[in-house]
Amino acid sequence: MATPHTRDTGIGLVGFDGDDTLWKSEDYYRAAETEFESIVGRYIDLADPRTLGHLLTVQRRNLKIFGYGVKGMVLSMIEAAIEMTDRRVEVRDIERIVEIGRDTLQHPVDVLGGVREAVEEIARDYHVVLITKGDLFHQERKIAQSGLADLFPRIEIVSEKDPGTYARVLAEFDLPASRFAMVGNSLRSDVEPVLALGGWGIHTPYALTWAHEAEHGVDADSPRLREVAHPRDWPQAVRALDQLARGAAA
Amino acid sequence: MATPHTRDTGIGLVGFDGDDTLWKSEDYYRAAETEFESIVGRYIDLADPRTLGHLLTVQRRNLKIFGYGVKGMVLSMIEAAIEMTDRRVEVRDIERIVEIGRDTLQHPVDVLGGVREAVEEIARDYHVVLITKGDLFHQERKIAQSGLADLFPRIEIVSEKDPGTYARVLAEFDLPASRFAMVGNSLRSDVEPVLALGGWGIHTPYALTWAHEAEHGVDADSPRLREVAHPRDWPQAVRALDQLARGAAA
Repeated sequence: MATPHTRDTGIGLVGFDGDDTLWKSEDYYRAAETEFESIVGRYIDLADPRTLGHLLTVQRRNLKIFGYGVKGMVLSMIEAAIEMTDRRVEVRDIERIVEIGRDTLQHPVDVLGGVREAVEEIARDYHVVLITKGDLFHQERKIAQSGLADLFPRIEIVSEKDPGTYARVLAEFDLPASRFAMVGNSLRSDVEPVLALGGWGIHTPYALTWAHEAEHGVDADSPRLREVAHPRDWPQAVRALDQLARGAAA
Repeated sequence: MATPHTRDTGIGLVGFDGDDTLWKSEDYYRAAETEFESIVGRYIDLADPRTLGHLLTVQRRNLKIFGYGVKGMVLSMIEAAIEMTDRRVEVRDIERIVEIGRDTLQHPVDVLGGVREAVEEIARDYHVVLITKGDLFHQERKIAQSGLADLFPRIEIVSEKDPGTYARVLAEFDLPASRFAMVGNSLRSDVEPVLALGGWGIHTPYALTWAHEAEHGVDADSPRLREVAHPRDWPQAVRALDQLARGAAA
């Protein structure tokens, strides 16, 4: 039997997100935020609704300049701590915030259960690519430590996951979006832009979602989208989308 | 006449560095450092030789965790300011250091004189690739603003320029190092690792060099290296190396 990726129709490439799809990530950001809150909580009343969302406000304001990733988060935390405390935060506490960043950049990389087996099974029949967003240096470290690099002949670390980014990656593979399926935990970053291009999505939610990623415009009833609870069900979902993609092309 | 990149010998690919090769960069880092020094200079005696090198010490200590780029520089500046002043630095000044980072990330992108014409001329006869090191988000912004993106079918933003990185890029082009020439201002990052792989180098020094980049082990007399003062002389240098490469393969 011809393997799917030598055929001219159906799914020819499966993309995988990294953070919170292949390995844990948001847990470490949440731990960092909790520590940040315990620091500023000694200066201000965190129960005040005006303060609660201020870190997110600063982070989103800075995304256009700092981009995603831990270093940008730390700079936003320093800025937010200074603003939230009206400059009363002590230098020793700013030192601790930098330390939070250093710890977050060095967190262990825990691959999620069933991921390796699922990617291995899919890679036997399809080309696979890792498409991960964020800080180049940190993502490279995480990929190396995950022990999954051997599964991916191609790894794309991108600064933003929008239709333009996916279109660029697909152009490098010389493949129409109609033959591409993306697996990830973020409807906003992994599913919405791929569906917009005419591709396919497999959504496996993670227990935690950053507020910024929770905003999206995905139609949950789209026939091009599969909701899958566990990585062990990814191979079956890919095969099901492959059937649909072949049907659509016929 | 067959274009060089359809031949089987000689130079088949020319790589170009970005910062301080295609566009100004170090000037903005120097300006940031000068501002940093004017801030800490109000707390300590900068003439003291122990203080003078402290920022570089902190930056190099942090490179393994933060990587290259402005955000890492700012975090190192904050850390250094706290250490150098024994925590006496005021919060308002830390705020100013974050502001230095924001300004540096948004500096204008000035393409160096003669660059566009030289790359265009080389690209008529050779495949070209931009290989630039640093923060993904900031480098993408600089490439877009430089107006040079149209000259480069392929752009590689990498976290470190060592032999492993260049070997990976060459593998993607399916080209031996003996057919690759790299153009750049840094002997450490652009020339040394390429010569180590058996490739060719064109070195165009920039007026300013970061101390970290100034350390290298390049043999200035290497026949595989051309010193070129100005971008306008790059095409001729590439042709000269191409001749040598063809001779070596014959």
